[in-house]
Amino acid sequence: MSTDRSAADAAVTVLGLGPMGRALAGAFLDAGLRTTVWNRTPGRDRELVERGAVGAGSAAEAVAASALTLVCVVNYDAADTVLRDGPVIDALKGRTVVNLSADTPDRARDTASWAEAHGIRYLDGAIMTPTPTIGTPAAVFLHSGPEDLYREHRPVLDALGGSHTHLGDDIGRAAAYDIALLDLFWTATAGFAHALAVARAEGVTARELAPFAQGIAAILPPLIEEWADDVDGGTFSGEGNPITSAVSSMAHIIQTSEAHGIDAAVLRTAEGQARRVIGLGHGTDGFMRVTEVLGRR
Amino acid sequence: MSTDRSAADAAVTVLGLGPMGRALAGAFLDAGLRTTVWNRTPGRDRELVERGAVGAGSAAEAVAASALTLVCVVNYDAADTVLRDGPVIDALKGRTVVNLSADTPDRARDTASWAEAHGIRYLDGAIMTPTPTIGTPAAVFLHSGPEDLYREHRPVLDALGGSHTHLGDDIGRAAAYDIALLDLFWTATAGFAHALAVARAEGVTARELAPFAQGIAAILPPLIEEWADDVDGGTFSGEGNPITSAVSSMAHIIQTSEAHGIDAAVLRTAEGQARRVIGLGHGTDGFMRVTEVLGRR
Repeated sequence: MSTDRSAADAAVTVLGLGPMGRALAGAFLDAGLRTTVWNRTPGRDRELVERGAVGAGSAAEAVAASALTLVCVVNYDAADTVLRDGPVIDALKGRTVVNLSADTPDRARDTASWAEAHGIRYLDGAIMTPTPTIGTPAAVFLHSGPEDLYREHRPVLDALGGSHTHLGDDIGRAAAYDIALLDLFWTATAGFAHALAVARAEGVTARELAPFAQGIAAILPPLIEEWADDVDGGTFSGEGNPITSAVSSMAHIIQTSEAHGIDAAVLRTAEGQARRVIGLGHGTDGFMRVTEVLGRR
Repeated sequence: MSTDRSAADAAVTVLGLGPMGRALAGAFLDAGLRTTVWNRTPGRDRELVERGAVGAGSAAEAVAASALTLVCVVNYDAADTVLRDGPVIDALKGRTVVNLSADTPDRARDTASWAEAHGIRYLDGAIMTPTPTIGTPAAVFLHSGPEDLYREHRPVLDALGGSHTHLGDDIGRAAAYDIALLDLFWTATAGFAHALAVARAEGVTARELAPFAQGIAAILPPLIEEWADDVDGGTFSGEGNPITSAVSSMAHIIQTSEAHGIDAAVLRTAEGQARRVIGLGHGTDGFMRVTEVLGRR
């Protein structure tokens, strides 16, 4: 039916057994793959070994056990500490590493250069959904690097469930998407934390606000599409919601926050950027015009 | 069947014909209500009059035409300019005003005191969804003030479509929810604008990023519920995602942004708040612990 090898009898190694690494290894075990695991701090593999994983005694032993190794540690400094070590480099020669650790696009490019210099096949990736989604259809994985290498390992990666998207041969692309998407995520999260602090000062509990906050999340997808068209097209239509209205709304929030003694510095900063747009003569444009003043284009 | 009067032969007045005010008046017309409209700047009522609305010559004439007047202007300064005027006050005596303009809870309370002093029945409200939702099931309206007054006018308000929630007798409550929800909305929006600027510097277009950004919006609702439990319960479980991980992720974004010459001040501010939480000894807690350092509780 297919030239792809079946994943069922494939072997895979997972380095890094934090909550996400454990979720990845667990999904491989559930899919029936021979799964080897290792973590710098010992003891993290116990539950996985009980479920059938092989607990390797060293990182070199772990990577030698499989054609494909996934790395999931806190950042690329941590990944380098594990990977850029003589015995591990020797064991990885001719094998493939998929680095699912989060860091900057530059670090991904640097790791690809290192891998190439040592005859290691390298893909970079990012996981865009929380640990409970791993192994379910809700998981979202992004990959970048050589497309043939991605295709070769796709059957094993599919055992993680969810959707897998290959973003192109540029190795930094998965990290670039990851950075931009986490930018949205953490800024929104900071906004929700602040919203809850202001709500509490007004006598509104977090649980009371939550269903309506979920409603705000629900109105974002169509707006995201509209805003993306604005930014790519350079149109920034403010019809129906000019940036002057945004600033008026932000000012009410800042005023209410500070009147309760609650730090409003995040929104003050965003408001200042919007006011710069107005000062530059674009007050009738939509909010997305701020993308133009944040930096060079 | 009901003690409520039918809305079909009811009359309603809309003051303020910006995009939202026009949407409200249009929904009333679609529902067959006798709709009177007025706007400070003339000419905004033309299309509505063509559709059957009565274009009033003055605000006083407009409010005299209906038992219920909705006010939808940019803020309460603008609302005061319209409402706190001798002939309008005289015409409003014994009638009801629902103020759907956005402002702070304090301004809503102040307006309620003014209304009571002049024998005007007063409800405060907020519209939580964009203009295209008005008249559709997607619209979300919040109301606060005397419950019997809300019940009396609910049949007319229902003509606007969507869901209507009465949040309680405290007149400032709709504005408090509005402020908190717009806080989430505008902070998230600023985060998306910044994400698009960083993505562009990495060669990723807004349209390429948009489907994955919609995926980020999709993971928020279950997290919002979890975070709300954290904040109300004071638990702040960081299991699976401690605030130290959040700070590591934020640092990658800031570094990538600034390496491209893109202002990262919004996220830098949010990161600083998270680092304060860690500095206070709560590094293993979840991100929502920042609600505790933003201000008094």
